[in-house]
Amino acid sequence: MKLYYSNASPFARKVLVAAHELGLADRIELVTVTVTPTAASAEVVAANPLSKIPTLVTDDGQAIYDSRVIVDYLDTLTPRALAPRSGAERFAILTELAAADGLLDAALLARYEQMFRPEPLRWTDWAEGQLDKVRRTLDHFEGLTLKAEGEVGILEIAVACGLGYLDFRFASEDWRTSRPKLAAFYAAFSQRPAWPITDPAR
Amino acid sequence: MKLYYSNASPFARKVLVAAHELGLADRIELVTVTVTPTAASAEVVAANPLSKIPTLVTDDGQAIYDSRVIVDYLDTLTPRALAPRSGAERFAILTELAAADGLLDAALLARYEQMFRPEPLRWTDWAEGQLDKVRRTLDHFEGLTLKAEGEVGILEIAVACGLGYLDFRFASEDWRTSRPKLAAFYAAFSQRPAWPITDPAR
Repeated sequence: MKLYYSNASPFARKVLVAAHELGLADRIELVTVTVTPTAASAEVVAANPLSKIPTLVTDDGQAIYDSRVIVDYLDTLTPRALAPRSGAERFAILTELAAADGLLDAALLARYEQMFRPEPLRWTDWAEGQLDKVRRTLDHFEGLTLKAEGEVGILEIAVACGLGYLDFRFASEDWRTSRPKLAAFYAAFSQRPAWPITDPAR
Repeated sequence: MKLYYSNASPFARKVLVAAHELGLADRIELVTVTVTPTAASAEVVAANPLSKIPTLVTDDGQAIYDSRVIVDYLDTLTPRALAPRSGAERFAILTELAAADGLLDAALLARYEQMFRPEPLRWTDWAEGQLDKVRRTLDHFEGLTLKAEGEVGILEIAVACGLGYLDFRFASEDWRTSRPKLAAFYAAFSQRPAWPITDPAR
């Protein structure tokens, strides 16, 4: 399988960490690409008209995206399950996963606003509105019980990718002080083998 | 069930049309709310820290979001299936659905750029980059076979919501001329009972 990828993309990291946790990483060839919201990549567009990463192409040539669908797909390739397959528990986890993905979407929009957009066109209210989404969602996650040892699930992976992205791009955002449970979870999750090898700052 | 909803949200429309197609609409109480990227709704935040709609709250008080998860959930409540339950066919459909959702995300970002952001802070390259994603994805959908009669699936519903949103918010975007198959699909889909009653312009 081929994964269109960028080191700095937290959604791509989520897929790659999931692949490592499932023992599938050595079946995935990483193709590093550069995409921005204003400049498509012809190579990615050939598989995904949105020109977004991560995009997976299977050995049969089938394109699979977005990150949530890729993880769902990888999750069918091994006996281990990253998410409950059915029942109320499944929708509880999928909803928390949507919160984690929404946190990442909001953080990326804030990042584009603060760094990518030409300086005279930046709008503080927009970036702050997105960061408020991030902060409220972190407060919500502080109330969950997340495990960092043993067989972790996709929710733990996604939350860790969110926290890692904040450390990577919003270093001045002190998310730990008022959220000791999340801080402890992240410190423990960072010890997993998949974490340092997918570190965007490595 | 309670659905936090706005008439103008194409993601909310997708959920509501899916509920109609599944015969579940009369079990859903619509709660109309106003959310913007810079102003959260306290009522929505109580169920979803992202303050995004659609957000569903079940009769047991469980919050379910985002739109994709809500549709997946509704799809378990009746024998009829809006998406294949497993296999390669499932991931093909989920990927096309991600394209349709990505089209809506891009259209919404273009809309925010062109109408919501203060005029002096607008960046043409950003709006055009998002609209390019929309157009490429429409070109891609033109190559699919979408059915508008009988038991439609979630992909057909999502594509129709994308096309309806373009007509609603980007009336000057002539998406039909170069895409006759999509135009015919949309004309036929618009005849379904769920369509006029969820029309944002009604």
